[in-house]
Amino acid sequence: MKRAVCLISGGMDSLVSATIAKREGYEIYCLTVDYKQKAKKEIESAKKVAKFLKAKEHLILNIDLSWTKSALTRREIKIPKKAKGIPPTYVPARNTILLSLAVAYAETIDAENIFIGINSIDYSGYPDCRDVFVKKFQELVDVSTKKTVEGKKIKIEAPLLYLSKAEIVKKGVELGVDFSITWSCYRNTKKPCGKCDSCRLREIAFKKAKIPDPLIE
Amino acid sequence: MKRAVCLISGGMDSLVSATIAKREGYEIYCLTVDYKQKAKKEIESAKKVAKFLKAKEHLILNIDLSWTKSALTRREIKIPKKAKGIPPTYVPARNTILLSLAVAYAETIDAENIFIGINSIDYSGYPDCRDVFVKKFQELVDVSTKKTVEGKKIKIEAPLLYLSKAEIVKKGVELGVDFSITWSCYRNTKKPCGKCDSCRLREIAFKKAKIPDPLIE
Repeated sequence: MKRAVCLISGGMDSLVSATIAKREGYEIYCLTVDYKQKAKKEIESAKKVAKFLKAKEHLILNIDLSWTKSALTRREIKIPKKAKGIPPTYVPARNTILLSLAVAYAETIDAENIFIGINSIDYSGYPDCRDVFVKKFQELVDVSTKKTVEGKKIKIEAPLLYLSKAEIVKKGVELGVDFSITWSCYRNTKKPCGKCDSCRLREIAFKKAKIPDPLIE
Repeated sequence: MKRAVCLISGGMDSLVSATIAKREGYEIYCLTVDYKQKAKKEIESAKKVAKFLKAKEHLILNIDLSWTKSALTRREIKIPKKAKGIPPTYVPARNTILLSLAVAYAETIDAENIFIGINSIDYSGYPDCRDVFVKKFQELVDVSTKKTVEGKKIKIEAPLLYLSKAEIVKKGVELGVDFSITWSCYRNTKKPCGKCDSCRLREIAFKKAKIPDPLIE
């Protein structure tokens, strides 16, 4: 059975992305990084997602990134209600760090595919969510691992890259995904704050898809 | 004062590489990753190196990579005396992980340069020590961070890339480097084992440079 490493954040995109892998017949190996983000609930959601996917394994790595300059990691940097350009919630090199760990995992378990839920359409302005990032990371992987240099492949799969957030919701529903187990809010409040960029993007997505958000209802 | 992030492993190459940065007038920010390698002594050496460099800061990150398939991390995989091709001491995606963390650090402290002591001449056969790796990582950085996308630079500096190991020794002596504080052996023995690939490469380097190794004498 072919194996896939699926990066799982606890949010809706990585759940849909990994569900696509599951439906394509991969054995699922989930990877989550607890980087001391403010929204600790993400980790609990990631565990539920791994369970939902019937993952063969769920590797949760503790990597303290609280020293990085980001509104998601530092108490003194506030999570803004609305931000222009690259917002303060950007975490330096986060997707590069996550994918490099996923590559190490893929090499270790001999997986040929890595699924990541990044999306370049309705995204938060993070440079490491764009298609050029995926392209350049793939080129890097092709020359830098034992596996790839010896002729095998490690392919970065970003099946949501060109979907709108509403299309992601629809895709998820179509695949029977349970969005109630996910957490998108940047805050660690009891209920999603509804004000941060991530909450707003999610709200618009469900509205456009004409589907109620089970986390809100 | 311009800042440089210097990846410090505790070995001789990263010490020489960082000393070059120091002599070029950078304020030094050291980054070391304790990834649960067998040779724990590396971390103690890295601390001595940071002190030798009078580093402004030494960030030591604990990232458990004991799950990766490598002779440097797993007890059941033996460190070979001599290996052909890409040896079992290769740690999956190690330099990609290290550099991605260095990029996050550089963005956080607003450093424009990252120094890494990799060397493509007398190296251990690791694919992520070659010049094509540095080239591709640079291309990735150029498109993936807030800093680079907003027009600033993060440049990967690998000043030892095209030097032989003997030339690195000579360069170090020329710069007044104290090699006695470094640790190259893959094992955590009291004295270097003298048998592993890393010990052998070091031995040959000092012999060719006609300089005694202070760690051996």
